[in-house]
Amino acid sequence: MADLTHFNAQGQAHMVDVSTKAVTARIATARGRIVMLPATLDLVLQGTAQKGDVLGIARIAGITGAKKTADLIPLCHPLPITKVSIDLTPIPEDHAIEIEATVKTTGQTGVEMEALTAVNIAALTVYDMLKAADKTMRITDLRVTLKDGGKSGRIEAE
Amino acid sequence: MADLTHFNAQGQAHMVDVSTKAVTARIATARGRIVMLPATLDLVLQGTAQKGDVLGIARIAGITGAKKTADLIPLCHPLPITKVSIDLTPIPEDHAIEIEATVKTTGQTGVEMEALTAVNIAALTVYDMLKAADKTMRITDLRVTLKDGGKSGRIEAE
Amino acid sequence: MADLTHFNAQGQAHMVDVSTKAVTARIATARGRIVMLPATLDLVLQGTAQKGDVLGIARIAGITGAKKTADLIPLCHPLPITKVSIDLTPIPEDHAIEIEATVKTTGQTGVEMEALTAVNIAALTVYDMLKAADKTMRITDLRVTLKDGGKSGRIEAE
Amino acid sequence: MADLTHFNAQGQAHMVDVSTKAVTARIATARGRIVMLPATLDLVLQGTAQKGDVLGIARIAGITGAKKTADLIPLCHPLPITKVSIDLTPIPEDHAIEIEATVKTTGQTGVEMEALTAVNIAALTVYDMLKAADKTMRITDLRVTLKDGGKSGRIEAE
Amino acid sequence: MADLTHFNAQGQAHMVDVSTKAVTARIATARGRIVMLPATLDLVLQGTAQKGDVLGIARIAGITGAKKTADLIPLCHPLPITKVSIDLTPIPEDHAIEIEATVKTTGQTGVEMEALTAVNIAALTVYDMLKAADKTMRITDLRVTLKDGGKSGRIEAE
Amino acid sequence: MADLTHFNAQGQAHMVDVSTKAVTARIATARGRIVMLPATLDLVLQGTAQKGDVLGIARIAGITGAKKTADLIPLCHPLPITKVSIDLTPIPEDHAIEIEATVKTTGQTGVEMEALTAVNIAALTVYDMLKAADKTMRITDLRVTLKDGGKSGRIEAE
Repeated sequence: MADLTHFNAQGQAHMVDVSTKAVTARIATARGRIVMLPATLDLVLQGTAQKGDVLGIARIAGITGAKKTADLIPLCHPLPITKVSIDLTPIPEDHAIEIEATVKTTGQTGVEMEALTAVNIAALTVYDMLKAADKTMRITDLRVTLKDGGKSGRIEAE
Repeated sequence: MADLTHFNAQGQAHMVDVSTKAVTARIATARGRIVMLPATLDLVLQGTAQKGDVLGIARIAGITGAKKTADLIPLCHPLPITKVSIDLTPIPEDHAIEIEATVKTTGQTGVEMEALTAVNIAALTVYDMLKAADKTMRITDLRVTLKDGGKSGRIEAE
Repeated sequence: MADLTHFNAQGQAHMVDVSTKAVTARIATARGRIVMLPATLDLVLQGTAQKGDVLGIARIAGITGAKKTADLIPLCHPLPITKVSIDLTPIPEDHAIEIEATVKTTGQTGVEMEALTAVNIAALTVYDMLKAADKTMRITDLRVTLKDGGKSGRIEAE
Repeated sequence: MADLTHFNAQGQAHMVDVSTKAVTARIATARGRIVMLPATLDLVLQGTAQKGDVLGIARIAGITGAKKTADLIPLCHPLPITKVSIDLTPIPEDHAIEIEATVKTTGQTGVEMEALTAVNIAALTVYDMLKAADKTMRITDLRVTLKDGGKSGRIEAE
Repeated sequence: MADLTHFNAQGQAHMVDVSTKAVTARIATARGRIVMLPATLDLVLQGTAQKGDVLGIARIAGITGAKKTADLIPLCHPLPITKVSIDLTPIPEDHAIEIEATVKTTGQTGVEMEALTAVNIAALTVYDMLKAADKTMRITDLRVTLKDGGKSGRIEAE
Repeated sequence: MADLTHFNAQGQAHMVDVSTKAVTARIATARGRIVMLPATLDLVLQGTAQKGDVLGIARIAGITGAKKTADLIPLCHPLPITKVSIDLTPIPEDHAIEIEATVKTTGQTGVEMEALTAVNIAALTVYDMLKAADKTMRITDLRVTLKDGGKSGRIEAE
């Protein structure tokens, strides 16, 4: 299992030693979406425009969640996050909400897990607030779309 | 926004009052999957059979994550979870790992968020351990497949 | 120090034994306010009406904070909170925001610390979002205004 | 809402990007007080001198609380705190306890929220230990009294 | 591995289903000690008598730690703890501090892990405060000395 | 109490100011063991070889626990951990499991508390999984065996 950096020669998991890696500026973006019934998305859109703010609450939950990444993922390193931004964009034609999170740090390892966690927790929070109205929702297509600043250089994906 | 129970008449979010709901036995199951390159799944399968245990670590992370649900999702109620089990099943023909979590409680509100969170954190943990080998992974199709024990009765989905 | 229930005869702190107390429905309300420059309150009011939602974010932070009470206050008992609601009301004549939190549980001890913590964290969150614009803010007059459901009966204060 | 750094042009909250700010030595001090009945303060003073140590416990809770700031306040950055000290001073003529916390870091953003949180949690902990004896306590006058080390220079207040 | 309740027939770890177990009053006591140089214990004893309170701080840390048990131990159930008390007793002839913690709950599973965690965290906290003065300390003999209230009845040990 | 760095001249505990200490590469190793009945160790060894992985789960819990050190120990500084590795070695002749944890950081203070906490939580997790089969287990001989990288130089112990 030489290709999996989290395992040693005996196949035992450890937190990878990053102590000799350079401290560099790092950024990662992740995306995902939550798909719902058209009528459910209408509820969200009415709320955003007028009163209850489903998307605003999900944004805050996602930012807070990004800060908990090292507590949630056993082998993640704790990192001094320097920025988190999250966009939640309604996509009426797909009756979905597209979620994109960007995280920055200046550190010895990347922040793609923080970006993925931010999208994840934002999506779960949307689910929680809408679940009384819709039992069919799905969270889907969570992936990393940008990673830059480490040894492996810039990686972009759709 | 009368249909969204987390918002009051002014559209302000609150944690729903469940103090008068009956204490009943409740169960929920959620599912999701993480799709990867065929070669990446091969790495996982070799490890599970022999040494490093990606799936075992993800199972533990998911169980621990389920206990953090009320800390992650702003409007979730804290609940005395009485059981969490998680299955991670490799699906070679789809080069994916299917994740299913079941959570039980005896309480005043349901545990579907706990089940979804367990699947989510297990999937993120798989992602973290394999990300050095595969930049193309996607976490997808997270949804609730069973909910029982509350006022709305038994709900099953695929 | 016979009057302080958290200390034993040797003056040592402990978490009070509530195991023989009745499980009853309990409620508590706490209040407090954050006072700022008139121009700062104007920024908040513009934001609430139009775009950025300082008060909505503080409400979410306060609800989440209430769930952390037993983790923050060393001798507090963990409690299954069944409701949290928080109101943040701008008081233009005092250039202040009044914060009121109500918490419910069905348990063996009261929730006044949870209500106070909710107000506190909501106030700190308001402070954080406005501190770049105003160095003069004060959080003040945090107190319990209602407590009911325990052995000591209903207690109301202004 | 151009003056509120936590909101972007669309009024959406984000964690401010501090990745290009200088890493400097930073310090902040915050103060506040908890006012009680004269007889309650007498209980505290007897305890401190002899047996139970209300103030010592509150000091520890405040230090621990300072380390949780980024978990409590949604848009706060996690920071490597290098010092926390807390003084709790009984003020018999006001039947109050004055609390002052000083926090240091070497980082890209200030620590005034950490200092305020330390005072806050220390005050809540005093409240918790004395609440059986006194239903009239108030936590009041929480504010930042010193901030130094960032771009805005030294700011002092009473 | 039929005897290990945390593993299913496939050897996979899960959180044991306690949902059908009776809710009963449960208690557990755990003990342990930290052994140090005689001169180090003298420092502690002077402090307790006069000023700095190593034992008082360790007691608070242990109580707080007991509440984190389900977050620290992956397969532990969250439990509504109803009491924690911790005694730290200097044993001059052994230049050691003996630590005993008792935890109660009314729930569906026992609290021996909570009692052990309380002793553990109290001991680590003593270690932390004394480590500048003594590099030879050892934490030792952590074990459960009393467990009662569940199906297996009362179990006592030295 | 001049020798105890966590206490000031008045004997009050504080988090030591490390802001002027050099940022250096630091490492610490801690060890401990859990002693059990011979039959219990047999259960573990069967599991490791074949199915359930007690030692693998304990390793993950210990790594996660190391990251919580500053949250568990009141006066510990938060540190950007750069490596955690944990070995659990069955010692059949002593019917014990020996646990060794190594932690690294690049920071202003040492990581011996993180290493001790990792061993501790790993040991508690082993205890939790085996407690249904064995009421006689003891966690013992927790100590620091290596510390290097700070002002006091390299310290090794058995």
